[in-house]
Amino acid sequence: MRDIATAAGVSIATVSRVMNGQASVSTETREAVEGAMARLGTPQARARVAGRPGRDVLVRCPYVLTDYFGIIVSAVAETLELHERQVILNAGDAIRPSEVLAGLPDRAQLGGAILILPPEPARDLKALRERDFPFVVIDPRTPLPRDIAAVSAAHFSGARSVTAHLVSLGHRRIGMIGGPEDWLASRSRLAGHASALAEVGVLPSPELCSSIEPTSDWGYSTAAHLLDLPERPTALVTFNDKAAVGSLRAAYERGLRVPEDLSIAGFDDVYLSSSTVPMLTTVRQPLGELGRMAVSLLMRLMDGHAVETLHVELATELIVRGSTGPVPTT
Amino acid sequence: MRDIATAAGVSIATVSRVMNGQASVSTETREAVEGAMARLGTPQARARVAGRPGRDVLVRCPYVLTDYFGIIVSAVAETLELHERQVILNAGDAIRPSEVLAGLPDRAQLGGAILILPPEPARDLKALRERDFPFVVIDPRTPLPRDIAAVSAAHFSGARSVTAHLVSLGHRRIGMIGGPEDWLASRSRLAGHASALAEVGVLPSPELCSSIEPTSDWGYSTAAHLLDLPERPTALVTFNDKAAVGSLRAAYERGLRVPEDLSIAGFDDVYLSSSTVPMLTTVRQPLGELGRMAVSLLMRLMDGHAVETLHVELATELIVRGSTGPVPTT
Repeated sequence: MRDIATAAGVSIATVSRVMNGQASVSTETREAVEGAMARLGTPQARARVAGRPGRDVLVRCPYVLTDYFGIIVSAVAETLELHERQVILNAGDAIRPSEVLAGLPDRAQLGGAILILPPEPARDLKALRERDFPFVVIDPRTPLPRDIAAVSAAHFSGARSVTAHLVSLGHRRIGMIGGPEDWLASRSRLAGHASALAEVGVLPSPELCSSIEPTSDWGYSTAAHLLDLPERPTALVTFNDKAAVGSLRAAYERGLRVPEDLSIAGFDDVYLSSSTVPMLTTVRQPLGELGRMAVSLLMRLMDGHAVETLHVELATELIVRGSTGPVPTT
Repeated sequence: MRDIATAAGVSIATVSRVMNGQASVSTETREAVEGAMARLGTPQARARVAGRPGRDVLVRCPYVLTDYFGIIVSAVAETLELHERQVILNAGDAIRPSEVLAGLPDRAQLGGAILILPPEPARDLKALRERDFPFVVIDPRTPLPRDIAAVSAAHFSGARSVTAHLVSLGHRRIGMIGGPEDWLASRSRLAGHASALAEVGVLPSPELCSSIEPTSDWGYSTAAHLLDLPERPTALVTFNDKAAVGSLRAAYERGLRVPEDLSIAGFDDVYLSSSTVPMLTTVRQPLGELGRMAVSLLMRLMDGHAVETLHVELATELIVRGSTGPVPTT
């Protein structure tokens, strides 16, 4: 709006009055403002001025739609359907290297986008924001500026609650199978873990904390490494349920009973977590709600409404099942 | 083409010549044919005549995108992306009751559709076919006429191979936790099961065969029922891996060791099947390939090419893991 005001030689308040269709503006001023809008704006902005904004929403999830990403995308698609918006999907592992973000503002049919765990660097998201294209990020990998809308789960407090649960069961030597080091979620989880340990005067031991790609194969091999340490941990917290399942297997192969000899906790509460024997203690991420909240924010941005709090964090919930128990007495 | 020829008062060969842009047609005849096309055709047909066919593809999967449906949708989306087609997504449980099919031909932007396990009755699919709208069905629920393109997995031979595997291990009393009775897949699976048993002179016992909604809760309760029979089965084959996981739990709760006391086999080979202890013997469905093949067929239909074989069945593969073993000797 500032740029338009400057270009039209009027005040921001006048631009606002033109945008709101107020009658107290002379025809000449209105035309100057609309001209500046048309010159400066993206196709979206121009279309809004012309009263024909793009209505479709791009949903970008450059990963295979597993029980994790698929649940988010389903909730996003269902909710956009309720808003009578057409969903353009961009999904799957193969589409990862892409210049798609930079081109979004030029697709006049698009009114906005939802970007799930975008692999692009923050500067690409900032560039998109600067072009005034409405979008919402679900689970950003890196910290985003305040003016980019983002929805994520409460990683810190979720990780804190599961480690606190283990601490209350007497565990002190807790292995952590964390996510990729440069992810925001991984860093928040590690901080939550450390915070719960600090409450009982324990510092996380570097030899017990590792960063992995979040798959069960890595979960398995990292757990194997931790369980083969001279002084092995009595409990493992993992970045997701897949890594917890890999850890269960590593424990099983070493003859360790879960939870009698070793406690294991996951994260996410996807379907898998209630399929194992024993079922997994885990932290539930509100996957469906992440999707619905993102759509709700996007609709407000696309309608041009002011949104005061653009960074939304949704509560996680500790789900205690059979895979965690008191620290072994030996 | 016959309708257009009748309406224009010319032969089908003439319509064909006009469509192919051959010079040997008088202007008057050409205009008569094009007029008939415009009057009779769908927006797709009209757009093809005008050289501007709709390019977007609707992908309809009215279910939550779990590890099963999500894998198919990812493969479809990736492959359409390679063909530079925009993917319109229609997914999620909430969108189930819908008149969306009837409206497809009227959306000029759409060039075709991929319908995954469509819940609509066959007559709705036939009506869509009659309007000359290009679409491909993945895993039809009911038998479809020859002129509707469909891709499915080899349910019969997959079910046959897993029961034959159990028979070769000495099992004769095999419980079957089947899918919904009215699904084409369920009926083919039951036929495959019966066929493998027939080879050793055994008829499937009705008390051992049940039809369920394919979730693990039902798998669990149906397995519990079968395992509590006075003469319990020595093996269970299930409609999918989720039901096999439920069966593992029912066995575990009864103190039955898998595979020593009871063999259990799944179907699909989703991620879950290699996460259990023991890992599941199962039948791999080529989920990604179902999606890629469907796109390949659709591209040919959208390009107006003749496709001779519209019903494609992709091979399944028996994956033997730890959950099946020799029949107990007692």
